[in-house]
Formats: sequence, structure tokens, C-alpha cells
Amino acid sequence: MSNNKKVLIVGGVAGGASAAARLRRLDENAEIILFERGEYISFANCGLPYHIGEVIQERDALLLQTPEGIASKFNMDVRVFNEVIEINRKEQKVLVKDLKNHQVYEEPYDYLILSPGSTPIKPPIPGINEAKNLFTLWTIPDTDRIKSFVDDKKPKSAVVIGGGFIGIEMAENLAHRGIKVSLVEMADQVMGPIDYEMAAILHNHMKDKGVDLILKDGVKSFEKEGKEIVLQSGKKINTDLIIFSIGVRPQNELAKNAELKIGKGGGVQVNEYLQTSDPHIYAVGDVIEVTDFITGNPTMIPLAGPANKQGRIAANNILGKKEKYIGTMGSSVAKVFDMTVASTGNNEKSLKKLGIDYEIIHIHPGSHAGYYPGAFPISMKLLFDRKTGKIFGAQAVGNEGVEKRIDVIATAIRAELKAYDLKDLELTYAPPYSSAKDPVNMLGFVADNMVNDFVETFQWYEINDLLDNDALVVDLREEIERDLGNIEKSIHIPLGELRHRLNEVPKEKIVYVYCQVGIRGYLAARILMQAGYKVKNLDGGYKTYEAVYR
Amino acid sequence: MSNNKKVLIVGGVAGGASAAARLRRLDENAEIILFERGEYISFANCGLPYHIGEVIQERDALLLQTPEGIASKFNMDVRVFNEVIEINRKEQKVLVKDLKNHQVYEEPYDYLILSPGSTPIKPPIPGINEAKNLFTLWTIPDTDRIKSFVDDKKPKSAVVIGGGFIGIEMAENLAHRGIKVSLVEMADQVMGPIDYEMAAILHNHMKDKGVDLILKDGVKSFEKEGKEIVLQSGKKINTDLIIFSIGVRPQNELAKNAELKIGKGGGVQVNEYLQTSDPHIYAVGDVIEVTDFITGNPTMIPLAGPANKQGRIAANNILGKKEKYIGTMGSSVAKVFDMTVASTGNNEKSLKKLGIDYEIIHIHPGSHAGYYPGAFPISMKLLFDRKTGKIFGAQAVGNEGVEKRIDVIATAIRAELKAYDLKDLELTYAPPYSSAKDPVNMLGFVADNMVNDFVETFQWYEINDLLDNDALVVDLREEIERDLGNIEKSIHIPLGELRHRLNEVPKEKIVYVYCQVGIRGYLAARILMQAGYKVKNLDGGYKTYEAVYR
Ligand SMILES: Cc1cc2nc3c(=O)[nH]c(=O)nc-3n(C[C@H](O)[C@H](O)[C@H](O)COP(=O)(O)OP(=O)(O)OC[C@H]3O[C@@H](n4cnc5c(N)ncnc54)[C@H](O)[C@@H]3O)c2cc1C
Ligand SMILES: Cc1cc2nc3c(=O)[nH]c(=O)nc-3n(C[C@H](O)[C@H](O)[C@H](O)COP(=O)(O)OP(=O)(O)OC[C@H]3O[C@@H](n4cnc5c(N)ncnc54)[C@H](O)[C@@H]3O)c2cc1C
Ligand SMILES: CC(C)(COP(=O)(O)OP(=O)(O)OC[C@H]1O[C@@H](n2cnc3c(N)ncnc32)[C@H](O)[C@@H]1OP(=O)(O)O)[C@@H](O)C(=O)NCCC(=O)NCCS
Ligand SMILES: CC(C)(COP(=O)(O)OP(=O)(O)OC[C@H]1O[C@@H](n2cnc3c(N)ncnc32)[C@H](O)[C@@H]1OP(=O)(O)O)[C@@H](O)C(=O)NCCC(=O)NCCS
Repeated sequence: MSNNKKVLIVGGVAGGASAAARLRRLDENAEIILFERGEYISFANCGLPYHIGEVIQERDALLLQTPEGIASKFNMDVRVFNEVIEINRKEQKVLVKDLKNHQVYEEPYDYLILSPGSTPIKPPIPGINEAKNLFTLWTIPDTDRIKSFVDDKKPKSAVVIGGGFIGIEMAENLAHRGIKVSLVEMADQVMGPIDYEMAAILHNHMKDKGVDLILKDGVKSFEKEGKEIVLQSGKKINTDLIIFSIGVRPQNELAKNAELKIGKGGGVQVNEYLQTSDPHIYAVGDVIEVTDFITGNPTMIPLAGPANKQGRIAANNILGKKEKYIGTMGSSVAKVFDMTVASTGNNEKSLKKLGIDYEIIHIHPGSHAGYYPGAFPISMKLLFDRKTGKIFGAQAVGNEGVEKRIDVIATAIRAELKAYDLKDLELTYAPPYSSAKDPVNMLGFVADNMVNDFVETFQWYEINDLLDNDALVVDLREEIERDLGNIEKSIHIPLGELRHRLNEVPKEKIVYVYCQVGIRGYLAARILMQAGYKVKNLDGGYKTYEAVYR
Repeated sequence: MSNNKKVLIVGGVAGGASAAARLRRLDENAEIILFERGEYISFANCGLPYHIGEVIQERDALLLQTPEGIASKFNMDVRVFNEVIEINRKEQKVLVKDLKNHQVYEEPYDYLILSPGSTPIKPPIPGINEAKNLFTLWTIPDTDRIKSFVDDKKPKSAVVIGGGFIGIEMAENLAHRGIKVSLVEMADQVMGPIDYEMAAILHNHMKDKGVDLILKDGVKSFEKEGKEIVLQSGKKINTDLIIFSIGVRPQNELAKNAELKIGKGGGVQVNEYLQTSDPHIYAVGDVIEVTDFITGNPTMIPLAGPANKQGRIAANNILGKKEKYIGTMGSSVAKVFDMTVASTGNNEKSLKKLGIDYEIIHIHPGSHAGYYPGAFPISMKLLFDRKTGKIFGAQAVGNEGVEKRIDVIATAIRAELKAYDLKDLELTYAPPYSSAKDPVNMLGFVADNMVNDFVETFQWYEINDLLDNDALVVDLREEIERDLGNIEKSIHIPLGELRHRLNEVPKEKIVYVYCQVGIRGYLAARILMQAGYKVKNLDGGYKTYEAVYR
């Protein structure tokens, strides 16, 4: 054996192909073999739903690199249709099955990189295997199957099971093909990474787009070869097509059988160098357990950005300069019909579960200057630590400029800026793009006011309790806004009249004020506080409340 | 006099109105008087060009707040048509001229905030005052005048003098009204905040959009009441309309006469609390000299974002918690027909002038995944310090997602992240929005490679010299790309053939490689370096070179 390192890679897509490319750039002489059990490497997983929806018309567009292309460009051995079936750690070799000729052979390694990804969860629901119209979506062949089904069978109706990224993208793309779509989700909301009141905006939008949204219900069984779905609630749905997308699990079998350490969630455990419990084996991508950058807890975050970056880092650690992977935040974005939803970091649900104290801000600023055509409100939520200012996470839903704001906050989190530091960010401004006080700055202003006890807030989910306890709730909006919907039992004093009508507001009680988005409530809070009142402002205003109760 | 503070504010728009609003929120009892010599306060300066272009149809949309509205909402005394004409520092009062009844009166203050803004520069060019069709654009009345001229006189041709933000926005908006536009600019490029090769992309785009772009030429005189413009070069242009927008200067007269300290560029000097040399007088907005956040040097940055934020900070320092203003970076964005240009921090021109050592990166990544429809390349430039990694500035030009990337980098700069830290940013990714390796990550990867001596680059402006000195330049692209244009005297070895054709490349000389955008050049550099060559890769590839020499 020469001095040149021999590196084997399992999995030829996001993490694997990125690692392979970087390895070659690091070392012209390393021997690199890329094993992929499927026919394709380097394909655009994330584009698959859009090809089914014919938004991406050409199937070829999904194939970013051919095996031959990568092999020649990077002078490496690319073996498609070759599945690694066993790792022999002691002898540092893998057992590979050539799926074309069914032969099994050994391949020794100096280093091994695992990037086998994850696979859709498919629990043994009665009838699931008999359902002839049921598909999961993960690979190019999956895509081909679903697309042919849609093209040939021309289904009129479809049911998507599961309201995560892929479920929602499929709902949109099937609707785009003219199919009537129902979406069934066990939880009370779609899009797990965001909180309920934020998802409520998406619920409303999806319903407006004709999706039959069935929340808090799961599948009990598939009947009539999938032509009928029976839900836990007893409800039955007839359907021509089923997309099953309730989540993924890491493909950890190779690692498990080789007795590499596996985390509770099933992810292969790695150290900060992305090294598994065997120093000759690295693992990256969907298959690994990562550290939550914000809480430091172990978690699973199956996303392409982290997989690509981890591939590069693993390669560096094997053939280049040592580099640490500093954790994942779960920054993500999805298109939901005409809307965009994006988030980064932790949501309220998970902070609650972890018992972490947090402050909440909801705002609804315009995507750009209101006077320039095409501005839409973005609903944003920021979670942070009152004591330290640390940002826990952020969520945004809107039509335009949504992911831009989350990217900025993700950068701030990574750089450990505080919530109130967001007010100082000097972001670009011209009327078609933003406002002189960017939405992210606004979050910073509001955070600044909160930590300085300049205003106290209450949340949409406290209102029912407050009303039950005869709290004093004041609507500060104009008559016309109030007529379009208001919180029952609230009294009405428009902000403009407040200074003159203070005598109508009893001093003994906490005054719960609200307006449409929270700004007038804040202004009223300032007036009332300085007049000796104890005041709380409805965070996010009637707009956040209404999204839930519409 | 009561214990309540009396604060006077000069100027009722970006900085002034923001300060006033914050003052009231800080203190219900403060006496606040807002002086504005014009008819309007709180108007959308930045929207003015778009109203002339009828993109913003309603004039009222530009008036964000009425004097009465602000007065009642914030319980303050708003005095439009009142010009502050003198500051009597010793007695802490100002002299005010009521422009309606021409009376002059005094108003005492505890604190004074100056936010008088800037004003268009109008040098004594022969004929400038006689030109009846010549306008500058800064206020609502200016807008009314230009819009009526366009509406009534229906000019067929217009000349915009000055290629800054406002000049370019006016060129676009006049073109939008069907007017044939020429743009005359003294410098060799439009849009001063970016560098020449980046502006070259805009030059090409503006020409494609029918703008007659006249660079490196200035106005010598206006003839025939402005119907004819004679340029320094001798060239004459006939025109129906002239927009004169060569820049602005701070309205520092009040401050100067009151003997407040003024900087070299004419800006009122303030300390980090935005206090002038008189502790009772604060100044904000276009009129002040700010500290460049990156270099620490004094500079003038007349932008709305900083003005708004400074207004809030000045208010805090007068009636609330002390707060420092930590400098300006000049983050800005502009729409240029179908393109967007954005930048933050220092450009190469200014770094060169300051004698600061810097590294340069040019890349041209797609605005989002190439396989999802509608992706366009963004041309980006990053400037940073090789030794410390400090980011000096960034520039981007493209069609979509341009200002998003600059906002992320502006955040990184503010948080003092290093250039190579950009590779670790976890930005949101789905095909309609970005790539798994976001363009900002790409800048980070390339920076990482540069500081680790993984690749050396050369710049577009070195090529002519290199060719004069018979340098060895290798074109790595495919035949078909080469046919569309190439660097003369370059030899041709497509990247795919390089490993087998190393014998054709002499070892004695530095090998200057280039490809279309720089990636293949980088791959080739890795191959050649490891084979013992000294190599340099053309930064930004042929695409950057071509933008200049097209
Ligand atoms: C429909 C869809 C949409 C998505 N949209 C987004 C999105 O918008 N944004 C985002 O960030 N992420 C998205 N993702 C997730 C993203 O694609 C994954 O996080 C990423 O591809 C994970 O990279 P990986 O290298 O770990 O695994 P993969 O990219 O899945 O690659 C693993 C490869 O390993 C092969 N393999 C497995 N076991 C073996 C073996 N034993 N031997 C040989 N080969 C093996 C598999 O065949 C597979 O090709 C999406 C995924 C899908 C399916
Ligand atoms: C056409 C145009 C487009 C622009 N586009 C952008 C853009 O896209 N992005 C961006 O960031 N910036 C833009 N700007 C710049 C931005 O508007 C200014 O930076 C910002 O308004 C400065 O705020 P300021 O408070 O310092 O001054 P201003 O907002 O100009 O307000 C100053 C006010 O003070 C009044 N005043 C002056 N002297 C006196 C006095 N002695 N007594 C009483 N009143 C007085 C003036 O009448 C004026 O109304 C644009 C400006 C213009 C004109
Ligand atoms: C296609 C694939 C093999 C590319 O791997 P890659 O070569 O590392 O990535 P890219 O082509 O994006 O190029 C990035 C490299 O070029 C360099 N680069 C980019 N632009 C450059 C420029 N203008 N000049 C010089 N270098 C440049 C970067 O520094 C980086 O190199 P490094 O990692 O050595 O620092 C891999 O990303 C892949 O398989 N992707 C598809 C699968 C996938 O990600 N699916 C999930 C999402 S749909
Ligand atoms: C209109 C103008 C007077 C507004 O001033 P303002 O009241 O400070 O600004 P906004 O209306 O944007 O509101 C911001 C305030 O509301 C608060 N706020 C915003 N959204 C909120 C929400 N949802 N809940 C609670 N508070 C909120 C912010 O914290 C901030 O208050 P603070 O400064 O006390 O922290 C001033 O910005 C102006 O004149 N602008 C036009 C001129 C101009 O800027 N021209 C150049 C650009 S075109």
C-alpha cells in the first residue's frame, strides 16, 4: 500500500458528494471511492416535489452531476448500484454488494465517511402495503413513480399524510397539477418547526387555496387498496392518490451493526470533528445526531445545508486542517403556495418542554415600505432570554422578504448577538426592499423596550382566561377596525382619545390593551404606565389573535 | 419653568420625526416642539422618484404622517412652515421664522436636536439658473414640480446629471414614463459605493434598457435655457428635461453659525452619544459626520436607516437610558431597472486610498438553486483582511436575492465575524430561495481557501499587463464557451483534460488559469499546485473580466 490515503464514502448525494469533491481538492493523490446504491448521485432531493408539480419541467435538471461527470472531474471512482452492506471495523474494510451483478466484495479503507441519509418513516398501518396508490417521496425513482402515476392515472383527488416540509410541498405541487388535495396531520398544526399561532396563518392560506386541511387526526387504516382512508376519528376519505410523508428516520443500520455509538433519536453520534466512536469513521448528514447550536442538546436536523457543510468539514478533518462543526440551528424555509415560511433556532414549544424561560415578541411589519407597491405584512416571532438577551429562535410567515429576515437573525444567532442588538443592524434600505427601520430592527427595538421594562406584554393564549376572570381589556383601534372583529367584552377607547379619557379607565385593575399589530398598544402602554397604571399590551395585537381564532 | 424638559427639534422627517416620537414615548410630560420649514413632515423622501415614475400612483402615499396626525398621536407641538434661523447657545434658545406670516420669534430649550438633513449640490455652472427645465429632487414640492413638468410638457428626452442612487432611480422612472434618457456622469462609473467592475454590470444593463450612458464627462454649460447641454468633452446634447443630482451636502449653516464643531466634509461633529460640541445640542441624520464602523474614520453617509436610528438614540440620550451610536457602514440598496445593486462597508477604491491591505473575492453564484425556475446569477465581491479575517465590505449585483446576501454580510460585519466564518452561517435553504451552499457561504469557503494558501488569485485589471509581459494564460473552459469570447493569447486546455495534458504546461512560468466564474479555475489550481506548479486563478473568472470589456 502506498502512502496515499484511501477514503471510502457511503452515499453519493448531499453529504457524500460534497465530502468527495473536497477530498479531491485537498489531495490529488488520495484514493477516493464513492459508493451509491441507487442509480444517481448528486441529485436535487429538494427539487423532487417541484418536478412532480411540473414547476421544474425537465427531469434532467434534477441530476446535478452524472456519475461519469463527477468521476472524471474529480478523478475518483464512483460506484453507483453498489451498496455498502457491512463495516468491518477491525480490519478497516467494508463489504459491498454490486446490485447489478449481485456480487459481494470487500474494499479496505484508511478512512470511511458515512452519508447514507435518512428514509421516510412507514409504520405498519393496516393496509399500507396493499395500498396501490400510496407513495413516499425521497429519491428519483420515487419521483418517477409518482409523476407517472399523476401523468397516466390523472388522479382527481389526493391525500397527503403529514404536514411537514415535504407534505406541504407535495400538497402545493399536486394542487398545481389540478388535483383536489386533502392534508391529514396528527398534530394540531402543520410545519412543526414553527409555533401554533404562526402555523395558523398557513392553515388559513392553505384552506384559501382549496386544501382540505384535517388536523389532529391520524390514519387508522387504508382500505380498498388505498382508495379509502379511515382516520382515527372515524372519518373516511376516498382518494385516488396518497402521499405518505410523516417524517424520516436516519439510515443507521450500517453504523448500528458495526456497533458505532447511536443516540436516542437513532442518529449516529459524532464528536465535534464529525468523527464517530471509531476514529477512522466519520459520519455526516441526515444520519447523524447533531448538537443544537443554541441549547447544546443533541438533536436530529435532516437538512441539506448542514449535510453539505458537514461533508466539507469531514473531508478537512481527514485530509486537511482540523475543523470543528459548531452545531446546527435548523434554519429552514419553505414555499407554501403564495406564502413563505422560515425559521431558525428553537420554537416556543420546545423551549417550554426544556423548561427554559423566554420572552416572546410578535410583530407584523411590511415586507417593504408600505407606499411602494406590493408590500405585504410579514408575521414574525422572536424568542429570547430576558436576562442575557440571548436569541433562542425566530419564525416568520409572509409573502415576500420572509427568509431574508430569518437569514439575518440566523447570522445574529451564530454571532451571538443579543436580541436588542438587532436594533443596531444596519441593513440595506430602499422602498422596494425594506423600510428604514427594517423588520429585524423592529424586533430589536421591541426587545430593547421589554428588557428595559418599558412595556409588558401578554399573549394571545392568555386571553380566554383573562376574559373568564373579568379582566379589563381595552381595544385601542378605530371604530371601523373594531367592527371587523374584536375581542369580546373589551371596552373601546381609540388611542387618539386615550389621553382625554383616562378617567374612564379604573386604576385598580391591570389594563390589558390591544390594537391591530401591537404598536398602538405599546403607545397606549407608555401613556398609561406614566399615568400610574399597571398595563399589559397584547403581543402581536389582534392580528396574531385573529390568525388563531379566524 | 417646570421640571419637565423642553426639547426642540429642527427638521420633521427621518431623523427629526423619529426622535420626536421616541421622546414622547420616553416621557409623557416633556415639552416637545418639532420645527419644519416645509409644508410636510414625515414624508417618504425615498419614494419620490417612484411617484414621478407613477410606480407609486398616489401622492398621498408619500405623506406618512400629517402634522396634525403626529401632533395628536404624540401630543406634541408640530410647527410646519417654521424655520429655525439661529441658535443662541448661551441663552439656550433658537430664533424661529414663521414663514407664513414672516414673524420671527424665540423659543427656549433644555435640549435641541438638529436633523435638518442635506440639500442637493448645485454648483455655479454657466446657465444653470437660466435652465427652465432643470430640477433637483429632494422634497415633495420638488417632486410636484418635476411630475407636473412631465405630465404637462410631455418631454421626449431627458438628461440626468449624476449617476448616484437618485440619478439612477430617476433615469429608471423617467424611462418608465416613456422618456428617452441620457445619463451623464463625471466618474468612469455610476453608483459610487461599488467598484468599477461591479458597476460595469449596471452599465451594460442600463444601456440594454435604452439609457444613453455618458461616463467620464461633465457639464460645461447649459445653453438655450437648458434645451442644450454642453459637456466638458465638447459634446452637445439637446434635451427637454434635466435632472441635476450630483450629490448632496449637509445643511450645516445653523450649526456653523452657532460655532458648533464641523468636520472636514462639512458634517456636524458629534460624540458617540450624538452630542455636538455643545452638550445641550444633539445632531442626527444627513447633517452629521459619522464614524465608519469598519475603519473608524470620519465619513458622511446620508441614508434613511442611520437617520432613523440616530433619532431614536438621541432621544434616549436626552430623556432615557444613555446609548452609544456605534458607527455607520453605509449598507445600501437600489433598484436599477430589472437589477438590484447592494453594498455594505468599504469598497476597493476607498481601501486603496486608505492604504489598507485587502484580499478580494468575486463570485457569481445563482440567486437560488439552478434547477428551480427563475434563478439568475448574483455577482458578488467581498473585501477582507488576510491577516485578521476582518471583513471590510461587500457588493452584489443581480436580479433577485441580492440585498438579502448583503444584509447577511452587514450583520456579520456588525458582529465582527471573520470572512471565513461566512462558511459556517446556517442560512435557510429550499430551491426557490437559495442553494444548500448559499452564496454567502461560498464567499466564506473561498476566503477560507485563500487564507489557507489553498489558492492564489489574480484580478481582471492585471490581465492586460500580464499579456504585455507574455504571461502564460490558460483557458479551462469548453470550446463552446471559448468561442463566445476569450482572453487573447490564452492557450486552451479544458479542465477535464488538464490531468492528462500537464506535459503541455511549462513548469518554469507562473500559470494564470481562468474559467467562466472561477470554480474550474480553482479546481485546476488545486491540480496544478499539487503537481508542483505556481498557479494563479482569475478571480471571478471570465464573467468579471467580460463585464468590464464587453
Ligand atoms: C423531497 C425532499 C425535499 C427536500 N427539501 C429540502 C429543502 O428544501 N431544504 C433542505 O435543506 N433539505 C431538504 N431536503 C432534505 C435534504 O435533501 C437532506 O437533508 C440531504 O439530502 C441529506 O444529505 P445526506 O447526504 O445525509 O443524505 P442523502 O442526500 O439522502 O444521500 C444519501 C445517499 O446515500 C445512499 N445510501 C444509503 N445507504 C447506502 C449504502 N449502504 N450504500 C450505498 N449508498 C447508500 C442513498 O441511496 C442516498 O442516495 C429534502 C429532501 C427530500 C427528499
Ligand atoms: C429622492 C430621494 C431618494 C432617497 N432614497 C433613499 C433610499 O432609497 N434609501 C435611503 O436609505 N435613503 C434614501 N434617501 C436619503 C434619505 O431620505 C435621507 O438620508 C434621510 O431622509 C435623512 O434624514 P434627515 O432627518 O437627516 O433629513 P431629512 O429627512 O431630509 O429631513 C430634514 C428636514 O429638515 C428640514 N429643515 C432643514 N433645515 C431646517 C430649519 N432650519 N428649520 C426647520 N426645518 C428645517 C427640511 O425641510 C427637511 O424636511 C433618499 C433621499 C431622497 C431625496
Ligand atoms: C454537486 C456537488 C458534488 C458539488 O460539490 P462541490 O464541488 O463541493 O460544490 P460546488 O460545485 O458548489 O463548489 C463549491 C466549491 O467551489 C469553490 N468555489 C465556489 N465558487 C468559486 C469561485 N467563484 N471561485 C473559486 N472557487 C469557488 C468553493 O470554495 C468550494 O470549494 P471548497 O469546498 O474546496 O472550498 C455536491 O454539492 C452535490 O452533490 N450536491 C447535490 C446534492 C445535494 O446537495 N442535494 C441536496 C440539496 S438539493
Ligand atoms: C413616521 C415616523 C414618525 C415614525 O416614528 P416611530 O413612531 O418611531 O416609528 P414606527 O411607527 O416605525 O414605530 C416604531 C416604534 O414602534 C415600536 N413597535 C413596532 N412594532 C411594534 C409592535 N408590533 N409591538 C410593539 N411595539 C412595536 C418600536 O419598538 C418603536 O418604538 P421605540 O422606538 O419606542 O422602540 C418616522 O419614522 C418618520 O417620520 N418616518 C418617515 C420619514 C423617513 O423616514 N423618511 C426616509 C425614509 S423614506
